[in-house]
Amino acid sequence: MNNEILIVGSLALDTVETPFGRVEEALGGAGLYAATAASLLAPVHLVAVIGDDFPQQALDELSGRGVALEGVQRVKGGRSFRWSGHYKYDMNEAETLDTQLNVFADFNPLLPKPARRCSYVFLANILPSLQLKVLDQVQQPRLTICDTMNFWIENARDELLEVFRRVDVAAMNDAELRQLTGEPNLAKAATEVLAMGPQYLIIKKGEYGASLIWKQGHFALPCYPLATVVDPTGAGDSFAGGFIGFLAWAGETSEQQLRQALAIGTVTASACVEDFSINALGRLTVDDLYNRYEALHEMVRFEGISPQAILPT
Amino acid sequence: MNNEILIVGSLALDTVETPFGRVEEALGGAGLYAATAASLLAPVHLVAVIGDDFPQQALDELSGRGVALEGVQRVKGGRSFRWSGHYKYDMNEAETLDTQLNVFADFNPLLPKPARRCSYVFLANILPSLQLKVLDQVQQPRLTICDTMNFWIENARDELLEVFRRVDVAAMNDAELRQLTGEPNLAKAATEVLAMGPQYLIIKKGEYGASLIWKQGHFALPCYPLATVVDPTGAGDSFAGGFIGFLAWAGETSEQQLRQALAIGTVTASACVEDFSINALGRLTVDDLYNRYEALHEMVRFEGISPQAILPT
Repeated sequence: MNNEILIVGSLALDTVETPFGRVEEALGGAGLYAATAASLLAPVHLVAVIGDDFPQQALDELSGRGVALEGVQRVKGGRSFRWSGHYKYDMNEAETLDTQLNVFADFNPLLPKPARRCSYVFLANILPSLQLKVLDQVQQPRLTICDTMNFWIENARDELLEVFRRVDVAAMNDAELRQLTGEPNLAKAATEVLAMGPQYLIIKKGEYGASLIWKQGHFALPCYPLATVVDPTGAGDSFAGGFIGFLAWAGETSEQQLRQALAIGTVTASACVEDFSINALGRLTVDDLYNRYEALHEMVRFEGISPQAILPT
Repeated sequence: MNNEILIVGSLALDTVETPFGRVEEALGGAGLYAATAASLLAPVHLVAVIGDDFPQQALDELSGRGVALEGVQRVKGGRSFRWSGHYKYDMNEAETLDTQLNVFADFNPLLPKPARRCSYVFLANILPSLQLKVLDQVQQPRLTICDTMNFWIENARDELLEVFRRVDVAAMNDAELRQLTGEPNLAKAATEVLAMGPQYLIIKKGEYGASLIWKQGHFALPCYPLATVVDPTGAGDSFAGGFIGFLAWAGETSEQQLRQALAIGTVTASACVEDFSINALGRLTVDDLYNRYEALHEMVRFEGISPQAILPT
């Protein structure tokens, strides 16, 4: 058992437009956001694929954060994964303008030996069959989390259900949960997903917060309120990175630590959206994280009521 | 100072269709939902207008709950306010099919003497100029709350802003808040509303919960999770009724009690949506309310982290 985290997910160049500006070919990808977030709290091994065009400086910065990059394959003559999207004023949903898989189309995640021994595994949103290949290579992980997206729910359902049978935690947004189950009621839909295999379900609700659901219980948090939301890209992956980073740091995965991890994920995501790309997330310190955690804790605090006081006698 | 609550709002006959069924000319109206909810915790005075066709039995049931009805005007030969709406599967927003103001078109809220002396005042969603008439009649209330809607924001903005200058708490949903301020960011929009006069702002977010915002702070709760959501009609008014009912019961309006009141409002609304009309809300007991409050309290509980533990030394 160690405190090391394996993250498998994309490194990308994103072109994003929001009401607050535009970036072209900025650093992005689920793997980058999650690794940047998680590396604040524990050592990370990243497995991904890039082309000639992915900046070496970005890799050097990840190394500097304690992210092991032996599992990042650079394809000679290849172009990196590119995504282009646009957000309107409410910023809750991206409109995808263009996706170029490029080197990602032939990605075969091969885990270097140290990566196979990680205790904590985050399978970011990639083809479910690749998520399964990763699960085949890891040795007795302590906690595995998968993310997914609408495209796989529709087009790779069987493989996705196989992933769900094998992971401890499934993460998805509310629309994906409804799509997967065909059930509009989130509480019922959650029960259906837990019956598919995962012990825990994380429901991501964008600016409305997140929930953690297990057979016997339910934990929910509102979003951390921000006056500045510049670009929501990567919020879900930063959330997942903070979540698994905290669990690796804590060395415990009991209900109490999972609740705390959801709060750490929430405040990590809040930092991500304050600027484009990983600009704000990369500047986040453990000190900031702790201060936002405490502010969130204070924000949801309320006192119990004594039953003697309220119940009629 | 007493613990009595004045509620001014509609008594209506609602025709509602949701994916789970349909009711025709069922008991409804903001005043009915709010009074049913608040009367669980404190005495209520209701001011409203009805036609010949509003069932006497419904009034008798309100009386039985301790709701004083001297302020309910019955217009001879008049027809009661009618609303007809339809919800799709996600149930977050009603599509209004028909609104017939009927006797409500000429409503002039005249407060009986005992109603004027209430310490707690809830102005449900009616014409802002009528909300002002009510405020003119009440004598030194301890806490005043107003609700509103998109139609008044667009068509009676000046009167609405005058209401805001005079109430302690403004309640609205997130779309209304964005419409009123023209500001998509909820945290910024909230700051703008507080500058308009109210000391507190309640943001209602439907199935995503509610927030309470004041100059120095912010409290937020997720929704109470329900496997059965039959009809969201009246949720916001039940929320407000529970909120003000708790404050009247507690006899305090400090930050701690306002936080608790938001939790009571949340669980009151959760009961409302489990059935059509006031069917479920009317069956709610103080015991149920207490149990749901405790469940909500447990649902948002998480432990702090010691800074010594997390911060690098």
